[in-house]
Amino acid sequence: MNGLFRSRPPRPITFLSDYGYTDEFAGVCRGVIARVAPGAPVIDLTHGIGRAAVRQGALVLANSIPYCPAGVHLAVVDPGVGTERRPVAIRVADEDRLLVGPDNGLLGLAVARLGGAARAVDLTASPFKLEPASATFHGRDLFAPIAARLALGADLEEAGEPVSPDSLTPMELPQPRVYPERVIAHAIHNDQFGNVILNLTREQLDPTPFGLGDSLGVETRGGSFSAAFARTFADVAEGQVLLYEDATRTLALAVNRGSAAEALRIEPDDEVVLRQH
Amino acid sequence: MNGLFRSRPPRPITFLSDYGYTDEFAGVCRGVIARVAPGAPVIDLTHGIGRAAVRQGALVLANSIPYCPAGVHLAVVDPGVGTERRPVAIRVADEDRLLVGPDNGLLGLAVARLGGAARAVDLTASPFKLEPASATFHGRDLFAPIAARLALGADLEEAGEPVSPDSLTPMELPQPRVYPERVIAHAIHNDQFGNVILNLTREQLDPTPFGLGDSLGVETRGGSFSAAFARTFADVAEGQVLLYEDATRTLALAVNRGSAAEALRIEPDDEVVLRQH
Amino acid sequence: MNGLFRSRPPRPITFLSDYGYTDEFAGVCRGVIARVAPGAPVIDLTHGIGRAAVRQGALVLANSIPYCPAGVHLAVVDPGVGTERRPVAIRVADEDRLLVGPDNGLLGLAVARLGGAARAVDLTASPFKLEPASATFHGRDLFAPIAARLALGADLEEAGEPVSPDSLTPMELPQPRVYPERVIAHAIHNDQFGNVILNLTREQLDPTPFGLGDSLGVETRGGSFSAAFARTFADVAEGQVLLYEDATRTLALAVNRGSAAEALRIEPDDEVVLRQH
Repeated sequence: MNGLFRSRPPRPITFLSDYGYTDEFAGVCRGVIARVAPGAPVIDLTHGIGRAAVRQGALVLANSIPYCPAGVHLAVVDPGVGTERRPVAIRVADEDRLLVGPDNGLLGLAVARLGGAARAVDLTASPFKLEPASATFHGRDLFAPIAARLALGADLEEAGEPVSPDSLTPMELPQPRVYPERVIAHAIHNDQFGNVILNLTREQLDPTPFGLGDSLGVETRGGSFSAAFARTFADVAEGQVLLYEDATRTLALAVNRGSAAEALRIEPDDEVVLRQH
Repeated sequence: MNGLFRSRPPRPITFLSDYGYTDEFAGVCRGVIARVAPGAPVIDLTHGIGRAAVRQGALVLANSIPYCPAGVHLAVVDPGVGTERRPVAIRVADEDRLLVGPDNGLLGLAVARLGGAARAVDLTASPFKLEPASATFHGRDLFAPIAARLALGADLEEAGEPVSPDSLTPMELPQPRVYPERVIAHAIHNDQFGNVILNLTREQLDPTPFGLGDSLGVETRGGSFSAAFARTFADVAEGQVLLYEDATRTLALAVNRGSAAEALRIEPDDEVVLRQH
Repeated sequence: MNGLFRSRPPRPITFLSDYGYTDEFAGVCRGVIARVAPGAPVIDLTHGIGRAAVRQGALVLANSIPYCPAGVHLAVVDPGVGTERRPVAIRVADEDRLLVGPDNGLLGLAVARLGGAARAVDLTASPFKLEPASATFHGRDLFAPIAARLALGADLEEAGEPVSPDSLTPMELPQPRVYPERVIAHAIHNDQFGNVILNLTREQLDPTPFGLGDSLGVETRGGSFSAAFARTFADVAEGQVLLYEDATRTLALAVNRGSAAEALRIEPDDEVVLRQH
């Protein structure tokens, strides 16, 4: 399907979506990639992003890419498929990485962490899309074949019409408010184990005296709780609440062998107040 | 494990099953394939087909294969494993594709869409199966190693005993009844988002005046509803029912950001009546 | 990332964990492997092991490895991550296989079936780990990159500090008590279909007269039941209880088209008594 001479092997493609595992949506996209770019390694990051959870997808993508080989990063969480939202491909400034997906903020955090967008194209009329393209399955008909062509070495500008990098949709996260005695943070995602990821890093605790080993007060819609600021789950007793720095260097609340989301009744976007005990 | 000289790289193998993701069944089959045919690309279509849902598996397989590279298509939804149902491998007429799985209808829709079966073999006594073969896990012991040998380039007739293509089990779907004023269709599958796939295509609406933009009446066991015949979800308000052509060119009912299966109380095989409003 | 000359292609890596499919944990580990060892085939066995279910993981791993190509076997079910439990890599005696994971019993059954550990290393201060390593995600920072380096051909002793194979944590399973008239077995795992895997093989039935085709009594916390000792599900009526040898050559209880775990109210570790009827 590609008559051009390519001297390099296909680049790896990472793939993240909210397609789930019950239906064949992710599998059909893998089929399209294998057909367009035989031999391109496909690394499934996850297809378990919450349905239409663009912000969660953006966070997971930004946290995962640094651990993956440079190549093409395909991401599809696309509640606006079929509307005027643009499909885009982006070359980032800092590394030899290309991102492909809807321009709805999903790619925003990853792009920001990789130095911003150096160049971007609108894929709406891409010559690489499958014809006839459906109105509802752009993963299969648009994003997957374009990611595959980019993995084969196509230039970004072959894939679509150049657009200004400044016109791309960013992803704005709520910012924590940090005072000397307390921090007003937000829950941004509950993982499958009930750990609650906050919009807060250890560096942002700076004006507070909170440190490892401290006992902190936590206020949520579920009430007031006591939490240990610990390095890892095993540092606290079973059932105890802990605040810890997770593997993405973000602060999170957990219950050892339990669910913080349930025990503290926290839902995404809730305010979570941390204070001295 | 294969002493013959093969000059071509192994062909890709697509893999669909109802093995789910909790247990290791699909993974062990992938292990067998990697052992028998190192380097053969394996494309997981889905392992989330409903348990023993042969018809759903048949639909997904038939809709997915056209998007996948030509090669070997392994499919296992096999409630009759260990009984007299035959394991088969089939070469289709229209393309260079081989299908491997139980002869229970699972392969029937894909075979029909690919021009019918040109040749078929019964795999019961295949020299390629693992010994000792278990009574209950033919995916691992029979289908996976045979698919792998076919991917390496084995002839169909090396894999089993020839049988008449006419003896293969077809998959019969209920047919819609279409009148000038109404259509009596059937729900054939509810996907994970609650979209209800009907046994109906846009072409089959021909004697009716139903067209894009129309408002239609929908009668189900849940009552009477109003639906917009729309191009995509985004064309209707949140919570509204729509009839749309899905990405497999089949008509389906959905609720924008909701579940049509729940809202309209539709279960697979239910009759669904569409009429002028 | 690897300056050494390697003449052989990377070895395959099997991967088993309790990371689930909702989050990206397994995907990020795949990313790390693809980065460290481009071209190394990764065979996902399953990431659906119960959370912290070390024994279930050990059973699945031991039952799966014989079907997989020789190579590196990465397994992560690690409730003690961040504590003093050792991360280890093991070369087994009987085959050219390396196992990588926590030394908490997870690798124990597989090692025992493969002739025991020939050599082992403690990975705590491995030069192959990612820096900075997190306290909570050793899959990504420790186990995956080390498995990848071993797949590239690194020597076991390059990966960590040698430890005595005798010091490795074994996995002890409860043993059945077998009398001429009855067997006291234990449920060791309920699979996703509700089949109950017992700590019992057909060979261990030896002093009893129980044989294929017999009707047996089964006593559980749920009461007394009648079960057919059958070769496969299809040998009994829908809804009937059967005792059968599963595909791992272990005896199991099932209900044809139903759930034995539910119907007989059996939970893992429960005693299950089989007796003549």
